[in-house]
Amino acid sequence: MVFFSISEYYERITKTKHRMANEGIEVLLVTDPANMNYLSGYDAWSFYVHQLLVIFIDEDQPYWIGRGQDASAAFHTSWLEADHVYPYTDDYIQSSEKHPMEFVSDFIKAKKYDKKTIAAEFDAYYFTAKNFMKLKENLPNAVFKDGTNLVNWIRIIKSDQEIECIKIASKIAEGAMQAAFDSIDAGVRQSDAAAAIAHAQIRGTDDFGGDYPAIVPLLPTGDRTSACHLTWTDELFRQGDPVIIELSGCYKRYHSPLARTIFLGMPDENIQYIADVVVEGINITLDAIRPGITCEEVEAVWRRVIEKSGIKKDSRLGYSMGLNYPPDWGEHTASLRAGDHTILRENMTFHMIPGIWLDHMGVEISESFRITDKGCEVLADFPRELLVKPNIRLA
Amino acid sequence: MVFFSISEYYERITKTKHRMANEGIEVLLVTDPANMNYLSGYDAWSFYVHQLLVIFIDEDQPYWIGRGQDASAAFHTSWLEADHVYPYTDDYIQSSEKHPMEFVSDFIKAKKYDKKTIAAEFDAYYFTAKNFMKLKENLPNAVFKDGTNLVNWIRIIKSDQEIECIKIASKIAEGAMQAAFDSIDAGVRQSDAAAAIAHAQIRGTDDFGGDYPAIVPLLPTGDRTSACHLTWTDELFRQGDPVIIELSGCYKRYHSPLARTIFLGMPDENIQYIADVVVEGINITLDAIRPGITCEEVEAVWRRVIEKSGIKKDSRLGYSMGLNYPPDWGEHTASLRAGDHTILRENMTFHMIPGIWLDHMGVEISESFRITDKGCEVLADFPRELLVKPNIRLA
Repeated sequence: MVFFSISEYYERITKTKHRMANEGIEVLLVTDPANMNYLSGYDAWSFYVHQLLVIFIDEDQPYWIGRGQDASAAFHTSWLEADHVYPYTDDYIQSSEKHPMEFVSDFIKAKKYDKKTIAAEFDAYYFTAKNFMKLKENLPNAVFKDGTNLVNWIRIIKSDQEIECIKIASKIAEGAMQAAFDSIDAGVRQSDAAAAIAHAQIRGTDDFGGDYPAIVPLLPTGDRTSACHLTWTDELFRQGDPVIIELSGCYKRYHSPLARTIFLGMPDENIQYIADVVVEGINITLDAIRPGITCEEVEAVWRRVIEKSGIKKDSRLGYSMGLNYPPDWGEHTASLRAGDHTILRENMTFHMIPGIWLDHMGVEISESFRITDKGCEVLADFPRELLVKPNIRLA
Repeated sequence: MVFFSISEYYERITKTKHRMANEGIEVLLVTDPANMNYLSGYDAWSFYVHQLLVIFIDEDQPYWIGRGQDASAAFHTSWLEADHVYPYTDDYIQSSEKHPMEFVSDFIKAKKYDKKTIAAEFDAYYFTAKNFMKLKENLPNAVFKDGTNLVNWIRIIKSDQEIECIKIASKIAEGAMQAAFDSIDAGVRQSDAAAAIAHAQIRGTDDFGGDYPAIVPLLPTGDRTSACHLTWTDELFRQGDPVIIELSGCYKRYHSPLARTIFLGMPDENIQYIADVVVEGINITLDAIRPGITCEEVEAVWRRVIEKSGIKKDSRLGYSMGLNYPPDWGEHTASLRAGDHTILRENMTFHMIPGIWLDHMGVEISESFRITDKGCEVLADFPRELLVKPNIRLA
């Protein structure tokens, strides 16, 4: 029932325990849904209630703790044995009287780990301040440590099978971007184009069905292209406007993000110039990437290209990505930016997204890539340029 | 640019300040994206980085704090004036050295509220344990209180304009469920049906474009119907299997959830019996609903019906819903369950989802409804029964 081999999951657990041992952690509470999936295979849209894996340093298998009605999802999607699935009753759900972390604390006490060193992912999306308060209150003799991104840093180098998933996601991303190009035009309702993109993402390819990406298609247009994280509206696309599309293919929760900008009509010199600089910057930076250099060095290559142009970019150039759940396909490990000394290794995967956002307009052209043994491999095959639809059909 | 009138937003702010005053709160930090939207109109897929509204009890307008590249989204989607938008620089993003809550703390100090009583939404999805640690560390003289669900409880009674949005979302839900019924069949790939559903959700109706629902279509089939929160796979639907579809229409971030079960082939007596009990339970419960009774009383009506049948249901019968963002369309306020003494009032909106999950099979048939002045109004118009597709086309 699980997608990867049990031995691959055990290898991931072993790496996790090595890191735990190095940091003096005896119990790790894993709430990040991507980390839960990575270690156990667990895959359900149940992260809107409190759930986690508990990893004891001297036990082979993690324990899944979650809502009663989701225990069946643990049986269906994870490799954990039945006695490692610990559901709590429904009266813990969104209650002002009971909290799931009380149940978790009781479990840790029953396992006699309540005087040990326990780490939790303090800055993970679904590990709330209340979670930590309840743990501290109910486990007064435990020592707590920060386990944020402990598992994420193991995820940064992908196995060959994970790379296969990301490559399938890249094919899905190509199809979704093609659907965007085909459907976006002046006079078309934005939501109709977004529907076509989502259809292509979820349908997938003839051979591989798509999964839901961790972020819906981002689709700002006109003035709104200055705001990269806006979604569509039910207004019509207008002649003379740029449209930014940032999307991802997703397969078995693995992502391959891709962004392009389409101009509806003939682009003016300004936007064409920005797009040309961005494409030149991407090309030169991709050429310079090889295993052994640092994230900071990658960003420095990009910065040298763009500095000549007079265009400013304040935000990071890109980030590691792969397995994920909403609200983010980014891995929260390495970023392509000054100060990040992470050394590039084979089978790391990044999204390089040199977005340029000015006061009333923006341009995004991006590529996802894999570090190879000698350099890097761009994942999706889609024209790397400002896309133009000059033949406008007004509705 | 904002969807509701500025006076409606001010009314929401005033209600929030009344609650703050009653609870002795002088500063409220609002991180729940739905609450941020409710109070400011802010609407972007940027909740994957730390962002919030800061409400000072003696100031008219909230302050938006978020990532630099999202400030433009605040200008485009909120009614806040430019001097109420405080972006932080990109080096705060997913960094092990800087944390956005340090920036927030500095802001609160500069406003001279650092010795006041500050509430945060301790159990909201995006308010992490680390957020709270950073605030406490940097605001050592503040008194902290739990503001979880403070704004959510204001949201529970919808304005007439909000109800209009939910009614449009209901029309979209009907279309999406019809797309599910039309596309799901033995031999069809699950991801192809999910794509058709997502297309209908985002396209919307001819008059109103759809928004992205807070939860993707849930689509367990066969054995997996025992696990309600599973999404689709790229396997084919099989003859003789049940399929559960739980989805929502969404318009301007307002939801109207709807669940149905389709049987591919002729249903056996067992599943038909469960479906009949569920439908009878829904009918009798809906008939009993009127303003003035409590959530607990609604659930008791349901329980009396189902107890006679021999079928057990351990989880809550339903919950308040409306405005939301991933990962949940539920509001986290009232639940239809024993012990919930919330009194039903006109323009509350609920999703009643009496799902029955057995070891190897489940049935879900649900309705969303609005409390009216005399009773309740079911929102979507879709046959309330076990849906059957007896004519199987094998692929």
